[in-house]
Amino acid sequence: MKNNKLVIVVSGPSGAGKSTILKSLPEEEFYFSVSHTTRSPRPGEVHGKHYYFVSEAEFLKMIENHEFLEWVKVYDTYYGTAKSEVEKAFSQNKHLVLDIEVVGATRLKSFFGKNAVFIFIAPPDLDTLKHRLVSRGTEDEEKIKKRLERAKTELLFASWFDYVIVNKEIDESIKEFFSIIKAESLKPFRNPDFASILETL
Amino acid sequence: MKNNKLVIVVSGPSGAGKSTILKSLPEEEFYFSVSHTTRSPRPGEVHGKHYYFVSEAEFLKMIENHEFLEWVKVYDTYYGTAKSEVEKAFSQNKHLVLDIEVVGATRLKSFFGKNAVFIFIAPPDLDTLKHRLVSRGTEDEEKIKKRLERAKTELLFASWFDYVIVNKEIDESIKEFFSIIKAESLKPFRNPDFASILETL
Repeated sequence: MKNNKLVIVVSGPSGAGKSTILKSLPEEEFYFSVSHTTRSPRPGEVHGKHYYFVSEAEFLKMIENHEFLEWVKVYDTYYGTAKSEVEKAFSQNKHLVLDIEVVGATRLKSFFGKNAVFIFIAPPDLDTLKHRLVSRGTEDEEKIKKRLERAKTELLFASWFDYVIVNKEIDESIKEFFSIIKAESLKPFRNPDFASILETL
Repeated sequence: MKNNKLVIVVSGPSGAGKSTILKSLPEEEFYFSVSHTTRSPRPGEVHGKHYYFVSEAEFLKMIENHEFLEWVKVYDTYYGTAKSEVEKAFSQNKHLVLDIEVVGATRLKSFFGKNAVFIFIAPPDLDTLKHRLVSRGTEDEEKIKKRLERAKTELLFASWFDYVIVNKEIDESIKEFFSIIKAESLKPFRNPDFASILETL
């Protein structure tokens, strides 16, 4: 039986609800890629769980050694996905989930080809997004303004994704996410039951 | 809001469970295309509901008048989908379901382009298929043998479809069917909620 595990690339503006959806996925089936970053940990963030927090010098060294599947600089911060993370998921026979910003995602398309599924999580509208960012209370007005500008740009990239989940109601969005995983598992080149039939013909 | 209704083309060997799955779809959301055929009605089959039963002369006339979206001759019987059926579905704002044999389905790919979703319903294996055909009791041994041969050929075409549902357990297969419909409705070019956001940017 061939491996029918997916590479699931998830993008979307900060505040769209991406993290909440991803948190609902069971760890027995999904491996969550941990990114490297040069930004400082927020309260409660754990090294090796939320991110690998590294210095800029370390990050640049990793770039030089071609250790990243993709990396990107957002404002003054580097973010990257180490190739070793991908290998970890596959060795555990789990779907790999990559939570990656939009530009990083587009770079992965050519790398993974049809093995990957690209899902964009969008807010219902920009007003709702602003409201969510403000009520989170972790960022000042200037940063929120920057995020909203960035969200606009990201939304224009969304058409490029395989699927767009508009997160109006979180339970419905989670159902939609699982429908995508189920449907993608039924593609003929992934469906293990179908592969079994072909072997008997 | 643009039309986000799907054209769902469903194929699969006789006895794979296609009809049972399609019967579970609500008529308020799905319009079932009625095919034309030159074969005789089976007991209980209703003209205009199961098929439009027409003479070979009538069928050939319709071919001549380009009234078919697709047609095919299987053994000595003609089957075809009239263009007028497609228009009916769209005017009612429903998903269009086309239950079509494999060769007819391939012909529709270029016609509908990315508007259509192609789903193949497969039996778990050929032994199960044979068992189902025999227990149905509507066909003699010779016809069942012919159907099994045909099923093998059809299964080799299945890789060409967008999705393959292997019908082991009917309730699970129905869930899979709905997951496909849900996922396909989330494609960016179909998702009406996403279209609404884009308009506000």
